[in-house]
Amino acid sequence: MEKREQLYEGKAKKVFETDDPERLIVSYKDDATAFNGQKKGQIADKGVVNNIMSNILFGILEEAGVPTHLVRQLSDRESLVKRVRILPLEVIIRNVAAGSFSKRYGVPEGGPLARTVLEFSYKNDALGDPLINDDHILALALSTEAELAQVRTYAFKVNEVLKAFFLKRGLRLIDFKIEFGLDSAGKLLLADEISPDTCRLWDTETNEKMDKDRFRRDLGRVEETYRDVLLRVKGQ
Amino acid sequence: MEKREQLYEGKAKKVFETDDPERLIVSYKDDATAFNGQKKGQIADKGVVNNIMSNILFGILEEAGVPTHLVRQLSDRESLVKRVRILPLEVIIRNVAAGSFSKRYGVPEGGPLARTVLEFSYKNDALGDPLINDDHILALALSTEAELAQVRTYAFKVNEVLKAFFLKRGLRLIDFKIEFGLDSAGKLLLADEISPDTCRLWDTETNEKMDKDRFRRDLGRVEETYRDVLLRVKGQ
Repeated sequence: MEKREQLYEGKAKKVFETDDPERLIVSYKDDATAFNGQKKGQIADKGVVNNIMSNILFGILEEAGVPTHLVRQLSDRESLVKRVRILPLEVIIRNVAAGSFSKRYGVPEGGPLARTVLEFSYKNDALGDPLINDDHILALALSTEAELAQVRTYAFKVNEVLKAFFLKRGLRLIDFKIEFGLDSAGKLLLADEISPDTCRLWDTETNEKMDKDRFRRDLGRVEETYRDVLLRVKGQ
Repeated sequence: MEKREQLYEGKAKKVFETDDPERLIVSYKDDATAFNGQKKGQIADKGVVNNIMSNILFGILEEAGVPTHLVRQLSDRESLVKRVRILPLEVIIRNVAAGSFSKRYGVPEGGPLARTVLEFSYKNDALGDPLINDDHILALALSTEAELAQVRTYAFKVNEVLKAFFLKRGLRLIDFKIEFGLDSAGKLLLADEISPDTCRLWDTETNEKMDKDRFRRDLGRVEETYRDVLLRVKGQ
């Protein structure tokens, strides 16, 4: 697989074309941003952690019946993935109140929810990734009813699988963000990444935050935490 | 029906108890606020317009199968209504992009929507009445699945009836906000008001704004517009 020109550089990853039009190479960076890019920094070896962790989790989810974009890992920082058209939606699942949910609705972090929440954000940096509901999505033709139904089914399945996976490794899955894309045949695939950048993970014993909130909120031991999470995910 | 002590004073209405514990008197004020109370003013005779207009529309909706809180009009500014526990949700229907929708999603005002939108806001001034989705509402136990389904059915029915009603009077119903409450028997009733404060109405010929946006955006001829809308609603 030959790496060709860079297609795109995002906040946390670069994406390259390959000699196969249906395949892309994703390269994970150590750059960290928060609050819609207002806070910027670096987390040493974050790219390695997020690449390897995402790939382990994509493998588990694929086996559980959620198709993903992963083809194979190429190196510590790079993976070969299927080319997809990403839906312009952040798909967020919340098991426990935290982050923007707690702020928006005035609910203490860590508070229980009467049910698991799925919410969508419209992926649009200029607008600050605003919350969006199903009717809005359909009114703006950002996705179809069939796609949304499939996304919802997959998102709750991902939650079920990951919650159980992390719990065995001493981590509570508080909430997470995933993204989906459509391949050239129109098949919906889980894409992007699953990492401490995109999940809130709290230690089951100490309640300590084991995710990007350490960076967002200047809690210290950021690099160590990312490495610790990877070791747990690897079962080491 | 004897008017007793004031139960509550809102931005646009006062509510009084009566000698019947199941009945309240609503008194419409001329006070106008916008942008979550940041802008304040008065619109002469707005209370009269909103009271009479709401009652005419509640009557039409009641006949169309949407139960409302209205018992009867008492005077130009006052009406007798059934006591309800208001659901803490603003129910918004959008036929055309405008207002906060246009701002939030970067869509020009007046732009068509691929479908009619229903959205909920969490009625909470301190939080700025944030957008909320069905999952959030259930997770925070603000309402039940059965209530939300009934609210949705009624809201689309209200839209269908009012769109046709206004169109015959030279007004396009762009969007509107309604509220629902539960009476002592747990029956869901359309409550609050339906007026130029709570609807966006554009003249079908001139596209002129015939609603509270004249106050919000300092467009002038505010009082005249409220009076004009009432005359049209009355069929005069």
